[in-house]
This record gives sequence, structure tokens and C-alpha cells, in this order.
Amino acid sequence: MDVIGIVCNAAKPAAVEVARTLVRELDARGLRVVLTPEAAAAVGAPDRSRPFPGGWHGVDLAIVLGGDGTLLRAAKAASPLGLPVLGVNTGHLGFLTEMEASELLPSLDGILSGDWQVEERMMLRARVMRGGQEAMGGEALNDAVIARGTLARMVHFTARVGAIPVADYAADGVIIATPTGSTAYSLSAGGPILHPGLSVLLITPICPHTFNARSLVVPGGEAVTVELHDPGEVLLQLDGQTAGPLLPGDEVVVERAPQVARLVRRSPFRFYDVLRRKLAEPQRIIGTSFGG
Amino acid sequence: MDVIGIVCNAAKPAAVEVARTLVRELDARGLRVVLTPEAAAAVGAPDRSRPFPGGWHGVDLAIVLGGDGTLLRAAKAASPLGLPVLGVNTGHLGFLTEMEASELLPSLDGILSGDWQVEERMMLRARVMRGGQEAMGGEALNDAVIARGTLARMVHFTARVGAIPVADYAADGVIIATPTGSTAYSLSAGGPILHPGLSVLLITPICPHTFNARSLVVPGGEAVTVELHDPGEVLLQLDGQTAGPLLPGDEVVVERAPQVARLVRRSPFRFYDVLRRKLAEPQRIIGTSFGG
Amino acid sequence: MDVIGIVCNAAKPAAVEVARTLVRELDARGLRVVLTPEAAAAVGAPDRSRPFPGGWHGVDLAIVLGGDGTLLRAAKAASPLGLPVLGVNTGHLGFLTEMEASELLPSLDGILSGDWQVEERMMLRARVMRGGQEAMGGEALNDAVIARGTLARMVHFTARVGAIPVADYAADGVIIATPTGSTAYSLSAGGPILHPGLSVLLITPICPHTFNARSLVVPGGEAVTVELHDPGEVLLQLDGQTAGPLLPGDEVVVERAPQVARLVRRSPFRFYDVLRRKLAEPQRIIGTSFGG
Amino acid sequence: MDVIGIVCNAAKPAAVEVARTLVRELDARGLRVVLTPEAAAAVGAPDRSRPFPGGWHGVDLAIVLGGDGTLLRAAKAASPLGLPVLGVNTGHLGFLTEMEASELLPSLDGILSGDWQVEERMMLRARVMRGGQEAMGGEALNDAVIARGTLARMVHFTARVGAIPVADYAADGVIIATPTGSTAYSLSAGGPILHPGLSVLLITPICPHTFNARSLVVPGGEAVTVELHDPGEVLLQLDGQTAGPLLPGDEVVVERAPQVARLVRRSPFRFYDVLRRKLAEPQRIIGTSFGG
Repeated sequence: MDVIGIVCNAAKPAAVEVARTLVRELDARGLRVVLTPEAAAAVGAPDRSRPFPGGWHGVDLAIVLGGDGTLLRAAKAASPLGLPVLGVNTGHLGFLTEMEASELLPSLDGILSGDWQVEERMMLRARVMRGGQEAMGGEALNDAVIARGTLARMVHFTARVGAIPVADYAADGVIIATPTGSTAYSLSAGGPILHPGLSVLLITPICPHTFNARSLVVPGGEAVTVELHDPGEVLLQLDGQTAGPLLPGDEVVVERAPQVARLVRRSPFRFYDVLRRKLAEPQRIIGTSFGG
Repeated sequence: MDVIGIVCNAAKPAAVEVARTLVRELDARGLRVVLTPEAAAAVGAPDRSRPFPGGWHGVDLAIVLGGDGTLLRAAKAASPLGLPVLGVNTGHLGFLTEMEASELLPSLDGILSGDWQVEERMMLRARVMRGGQEAMGGEALNDAVIARGTLARMVHFTARVGAIPVADYAADGVIIATPTGSTAYSLSAGGPILHPGLSVLLITPICPHTFNARSLVVPGGEAVTVELHDPGEVLLQLDGQTAGPLLPGDEVVVERAPQVARLVRRSPFRFYDVLRRKLAEPQRIIGTSFGG
Repeated sequence: MDVIGIVCNAAKPAAVEVARTLVRELDARGLRVVLTPEAAAAVGAPDRSRPFPGGWHGVDLAIVLGGDGTLLRAAKAASPLGLPVLGVNTGHLGFLTEMEASELLPSLDGILSGDWQVEERMMLRARVMRGGQEAMGGEALNDAVIARGTLARMVHFTARVGAIPVADYAADGVIIATPTGSTAYSLSAGGPILHPGLSVLLITPICPHTFNARSLVVPGGEAVTVELHDPGEVLLQLDGQTAGPLLPGDEVVVERAPQVARLVRRSPFRFYDVLRRKLAEPQRIIGTSFGG
Repeated sequence: MDVIGIVCNAAKPAAVEVARTLVRELDARGLRVVLTPEAAAAVGAPDRSRPFPGGWHGVDLAIVLGGDGTLLRAAKAASPLGLPVLGVNTGHLGFLTEMEASELLPSLDGILSGDWQVEERMMLRARVMRGGQEAMGGEALNDAVIARGTLARMVHFTARVGAIPVADYAADGVIIATPTGSTAYSLSAGGPILHPGLSVLLITPICPHTFNARSLVVPGGEAVTVELHDPGEVLLQLDGQTAGPLLPGDEVVVERAPQVARLVRRSPFRFYDVLRRKLAEPQRIIGTSFGG
């Protein structure tokens, strides 16, 4: 491993502090270090700044300092490069991060010698089809959410799996989540918890105005299409970021993305261990897209 | 009864048609008829137009043609006058309307001779306290909703009953509903169904991001206060209409309103009958604020 | 106050220990002390034993040592006598008990001088009507549960409020709860939390096999009737105790009981305080009928 | 295809009638026909009776007349033989049956000429480990349910996936379901709907007495172990049939079974079509193990 990239949540002093230490340690080992512009500015190393992910070709490993939210965005951005990301947690216990900040230095040499494995996480790709054209699109590691804006009353839509209509909904919206996203917004909307290694899509309606709405888990190879029926302010959000407004007649097609997020693990990820600890602190905010 | 007012959903041809017939029948009986400007324009009787509710003092009975949504707005508007409203349904079965359009003419003479009773429905009043001042406020027959706008991720707030904190929520929002509103948006968010004659307030979180959130039913004499903790786009909506944006530190105080909605009934309202029929058509949209 | 009764969960050494101390303290003050047979045996005072509640006429106050479960049973048993009960908690925080064991001695003189008030809790009465006769019946402070036994697959029944059918259910059973019972089994089945001072009945289906089932809150003056449709092992339970098996065609009529439970409070019961603390320890078992 | 077996719900006259016709048609085509003892008695063909599944070696196809419940039991019984089963529905729309009774004769020749494919459905195997020995066990196509009997208050247990504890529950019980079983009892308990082709196990608690309990979906290759903690009447049920009582300390190990159920389809099973139609009749009883 020759080139190490550092991503850091510059709004968190603890994360910036760790980044600074990490640069020093990597320098001492003679490795090349690059940082995102945001991280470079925060640690005061403007010469190391490289646009991420565009300028990160050739980087061997990204170390991400922050919470699940920071890691989520970094892992997604890194996915087209196939770049593995190591999540170092400077806040609460997370479903994505691999270690606490205090563990980083003790395990650094092991990491740099390649003593880790990659856990692949399925991502999804959403495309908005409008008049036969792709009007917008993007990837998500957690979820694609189609939801009313504040001006709309509710959203009428039909969900199809493949070509087959499954349900007509009148709801505040609908979440199409990866297994990773099952512990994020979908959980708030009443959905189940899925093991992150599954290859499935999870469809969870948000505040359905009918009685017959439940979460639905479909094979990862299926395309889920949401067809909008009525006017009103409806938005597509990918991992909590607004991709854009939707129009009546739009179809949002959600499929497994070709790329995957590659998370660095020192040993197989003990999802159930993390889950048990998360369930034991139920006042904590659930989910991974909501912060950090 | 000397003066009859007519409210009508001008967007529904069936309602306008009934309004036209009703004007003719009331004229034939020598009664004075006034209409809302919207209804007057729709039926082509501009000289009967009177601003509602401001110009409706002296009206003895309002006949409202449309769905539950039209009736909801009319009943709320009429409440400061103490004016009874008769809901005539030109669409789906409703939780508020008294009769189908086909029943109106056969029962008209009975109605005009006063052969009816009033069912009072509790309303609520919401006030936004900002820096010790009431920044905005208003009434609702269904619900006051404090919810994130599309730009906010979620809302952190504390709910108090009287002076006592009950719960800290991280959620998409919270609904404070009357019993009437229990079958509207609160039901979509997982809340219980309350008999409309109860004097209680119903607190239902929307997509709570913690596990320990449930609907809470408190005595109607209690004030429910929602205190906002964080910045972000958060809105207050009353019966589905946006009252305005909220700011961090704002407190929204929701209490039973002094006035009540007065619904005309030919016999005691058979809530359970309507409920059973609604439950038997579960694909129908539930709730009363969402249309007509 | 001349005669003090003591009820104690003899299976809990901590409760027995407090009972022993309490007898001594009351003796020292020259008061007459009576105990339930169970409590008398546990503390070694067989001469103070009096059957409860039959032999407790003339008792001025019952002090109940244990958890919410012990208090639930004692308060119900004491209700026909109008006897106030003071719940002293030797275990977890409870929704019914008034104080921790450590608070008893410091507040004993205040209690004995009558420095307290009574919080009345609504109870319900269930009657099983079979062939026009009352086949069995009883009271509950938490809930009446009609549920399948282990041999039955599910229960088909119609719920009526007054004479009006509200819903046909196919379910594992149905809970009819008081507001006190809303935090017990009904909460496990997905029901809302009701302020204990309300005069309402709460109907919550258990694992409904249809989609259109929700909790329903009806005025306390209404009679809720559950009519059983099919054969199979179905049981009536009152506060978790089996009252007996039900037969097809049986009607279980549940109404507000004429008597109330009378709980001693040093100051108005701060339900919301207790609720907030319970919600903050969500791994704790919810409910009051399940133990202590 | 030389030997056709017939299974029929003898309690349903419509099913018996179809069976009689079917025997005649198969005889006319010169095929050998065997029936279960129950079916043979019902159609009056005692000489065709063969114990099922023990005596059905050599049978090429089982035609099952009844509802989803009849098919469930037949498919499970047939699974060790690898025998494909064709479900012919004489009642409501089902999640398992392939055709309506009226379709059987028109498609019979196509079926007999082998114009069909097999849809494999994952099954599960449950073993009760007691003192290091397997005390009892069995297979299920829908679910293994560990639930309190009528005498127990609730069940305390720990669920493990592999060797890792996931959650401690206090509940009425827990359901471990196949994807097929996701639309049966688990759905009543609030679980999600899973595509039947997935290889996963679904864990759904029944009336959890804690807040932090949700459905959990784990890879089909994992073993789910439920360890019982307390005394009381607790039972293991497989597909709705009681396998036996459980004791404190028992561990119930649930895994994917080596055999699968083999359902005959004329074309790929259109699960989403059936689901949409089921969701549109929400008062219908959901699930497949509850009848027919």
C-alpha cells in the first residue's frame, strides 16, 4: 500500500484531531497521503488536497474519520473506483464504521500491511424516466426515498416489481432501501431489519393512508418501479440528499447498482453484535444517514 | 329558520349541481339564501355571494356540499359564529358528513323545520410562542402537525403535558390531534381510533427515529407543548394547511379550543356504523383532511 | 386512622423485610395491624392474619409491599370495600406504586396522620352471557383478554359497542383495557398509552389476521361486547388470571365497573414523570400485570 | 407420467367433488391413480388408498385439492420424496395454490404431458436441544413458533444467530418463518412480506413486552437459536401444529431444511400478482396456515 487517502468530517473537532495525528503517522512511515479538500483545509495541509473522488485514482485505501453519515457518503463516492474505505468512528456506535478512534493507531500497522478484508455492501441505482428519457438519477447506499414535499398532501403511486404492479399507495412517500438502509429511515417508518449481506431490495411505505401497506422484501435482481399519479410537490432523495423534484407520470426505477461499497474489516463484520448493542440503547437515534 | 347558507366544493360538478337545485328549492320555500363567493360563482348567483364567515352573521344553518375536506374547512370557519353545518356528501362515505346527496331533497323539509340536533366536535387551538410572544396561531378540527420540511433531516423536540416533559423525540414530526382527527393523518402514522365525542388530545409521532415512541392520549383539559431543539426547516400545519415555519426554541402550545364545530345530525351520529363501513373498504383513503 | 392492613409479596425477601419493619413501627405507634394470611405467615405473625378482603372490614388503609403486580391484585381486591391502598415498591419503577421502600419510614407519620389523597382508577367488569344467563364474570383493573388457547388457531369474533357492530376480527384475541391497562398487555399488542385518569375503554386486537385492525378508544360509559363465532379453545382472562373457557355463541360484555381502585398518593400522581422514566428504559418490561 | 396421487381436503364437499371427477378423468386416460386414505374414503375408492407419504414412492405427481392449508401440509409431507405437488384451489385465492378448480380439467392434458415447471420453496428444520440431545424436531414450510401456552404469562428468551446473541426478548413468543411463511402468522404479528424465492429466515417477535423488538431477516444459511430462560408453559409449533412443550434451558435451533417443497407451476409463479389481489381484499384472512 503506497497511497492513503483521508476523509474527515471537518465539523467535528475530534475527527480533525485524529486526521492530524494520522497524517503525521503516515508521513513517518513514508507513505503518500492525500486528503479531501475539506479534510486538507481542516488539518492545514492544503498541498495534500485532491478532489474526491475525481482525483483519487491510484489511492489504495481511504480512511474515513467521523460517523456513519460521513462514511456513508465516502463509501458511496469511492465505489466507482473500487476503493476500500476504513470507517473510524469519532462518535456513537455505528452500523458501518469498523473501529473506534482509539483503536486506529494500535491497528494502523496491521492495516497498512494489508491485514484486512473487504465487506461488500450492495448499493442501488435510481433513474427517473420522463417521456422515455432518463431525467435524473444516482446511486445510494442506504435508500432512495420518494416523498411529498411540504406543499403536497400525499403521494399516489403504483409500485411495480419488474413489470408487475404490486400495490397502489396513497402515502407520504415510499422508501426503497438496501439491506444497509434497513436500519436507517426505513426502520423509522416501521420496516424490518435486514442482514447487510443480503442481496434484496426493501420497499417500505411512509405513513400509508390505507390499511393494507406493509414492508416488502424482493430479490436484489428485480427492478422496483414507482409510478407517480398526481401533481404536487414530490421529491426524490438519495441517501437523504434531494436529487430533484418529480412530475406526474414520472417513473422512478430502482435497481441494484453495478458497483458496491467496499468496507474494510479487520475480521468478518459482526453485524449481530452491533445490532444487539444498538437495540440496547433504544433512545439513541437509529439509522445511519442521519448525521456524523 | 330564515336564512340558509350554502358552501360548495366548486371543483366538483356533482356538488355544484346539487347547490343549484338546492338554491331553487330554498327559493321556492321563500327562504333567504346566501352563498360563499366560490359557491355563488359556481352556480351563477353572484348577487347571493357573501364572504364566509365574515358576512354570515344571521345565517341559521350552513349546508355544505362536497366531501369531508370541504366540510372540515366549513365547520371550522363556522365555529366562531356557533353556526351549525349540515354536511352533504357528493363523494365517498365520510366520517363527518351527515347524508348522501340523494337524501338531501327528501329530508329538506324536516331539516328546515328544525328536526335535527347538533353534534359538537372538539377543536384545538395552537399557539407558537417565540421569545415570550405569540408569533402565530390558529384552530384545527383535525390536527396540528409539526413536521420537517423537505430540507430538514428530522426534528428533535421535547413534548410536555402541562409543565411535565413526557418524551424527547427525534422524528419526522409529531401530530397533535382531536378525536375527530384520529381517523385522519394520525391513523396513517399508526395512531389509534378515538370516538369523536371524547374530550382528549392525541399525540402521535411521525416516523420516530427511536424505538420508544407510541401514541399518547391525554385529557382534553391539558395543554400539550412541543419545544423545538434544532435548526432546520420545520413547519406548523393546521388541518393540512401550512401556518408557517418554526424556529429553534419555539414552543408550540396546543390546547382544546374554546369554540366547537357544530355538525347537524338527523339522529345521533352512528360513528361505529361509519367506522365499520370504512374498515370494510381498506383501500379507500382513510382520513378526513385529504380531499373533497 | 386506627387499623392498618399489610399486603406483601411473600415471594420477595425485600418485601417481607419491609413488612416486618412496618409491623414493628406500627406497633410502636399503638396502631392495630392486620395482615393477609400470606403476609402474616411470611413475617411470622400468624395471630394478625385476616382473610383478605373478606375479613378486612374496618381497616382504614392497606399498605402493599411488592411491585405493580402485587398492588394490582390488592387494589382490585380492596375495591369493593372502598379501601385505599398505598403501593410501596420493592422492585422496579412502577405505573401504580406510590413510593420506593426507602421512602416508607420517612413518610410514615405523614401517611398515618392522613396527609394523602386518593387517586381513583377506573375498573372494568366483564360478564360472559351464555344462553341469556351470566355464565361467569369478574372485575379487572388492567384488562379483560379474550384469547385463543394453545389448541385453537385463531378466534373469529365480532366486537360491538353498545348495539352496533364495529368490526369482525380474525385474530389471536382481543384486549379490552382500562386506561391503567393501556401500559400493560395492550401496549405489547401495539396499543396507545392513555392517561390513567380518563374514563374510556381501549379495544386492542392481538395479532389480527386482517389488515384493518387498529386500537379503538370508546367512552367509558359504553358497553363493549365481543361475540365469539367459532369453536375452539378460547379463554377469558381478567388481569392475567384465567376466568374460564368460552364457547361459540358466548358474548363477553365489558363495561366500566361500579367500584374503583383507590390508590393513595402523597401528591397528585405524576403519570407523565413515570412515563418518561419508563420510556427511557425501553428494555425494561412494559406493563403492570406481569410480575411483582 | 404414469402414477398420479390425489390429496384432498375431505371436509370440503367441493374438493371431494373435484377429486371424484379427477379420478374418472385419469382412469379414462389409463393412468394409475392413488389417493390418501382420507381422500380414498371420501370419494369411495378404498382400493386406491395408500398411506401418504410412506406409500407414495413411485408417484410422479401429487394433485392437491383444497386450500393453502391442505397444500401446505401435502407439500411438506411430499418434500422428502422430492414429489412435485399441484395445488388446486377450491376456496379463496391462495399464496400457494396454482389454479382454480375450474381450470383443472382444461389444463389436465398439458399437466399430464409434463408441460409444467417446479417452483422450489425453502423449508426449515427445527430441533429442540435439551441436555445436549435432540429432544424433538421437525420441518415446516411456513414457520416454527415458540409461544407461551395459556398458563404462562410471557416468555423470556434470547435469540442467537449463529453463536451471536442478537436480542433478549420478553414476549408472547417468537416466530421463525420461511419467506413462504412471511404472509402467514408473521404478517399478523407485524412482520414484512418476503418474496418466496428468497433464501432467508425471518424472525418476528409476538407481542413483545419491550420497545426495541422488530422483525429481523437473516441469510438462509444461518442457524437461529432461541434459548428459553424461564419456567412456564411454552410450546413449539411447526406450521400451526404443536410439536411439544418446551422446558427452561431448552434451545430451539432453526435452520434451512435440506429438502424443499416442490410446487407445480404452469408458468413462473406470479407472486406479485397474487399479492396485489390479496392486498385488495384486506378483510380476507391473511396467511396460509390458517385453514383449507
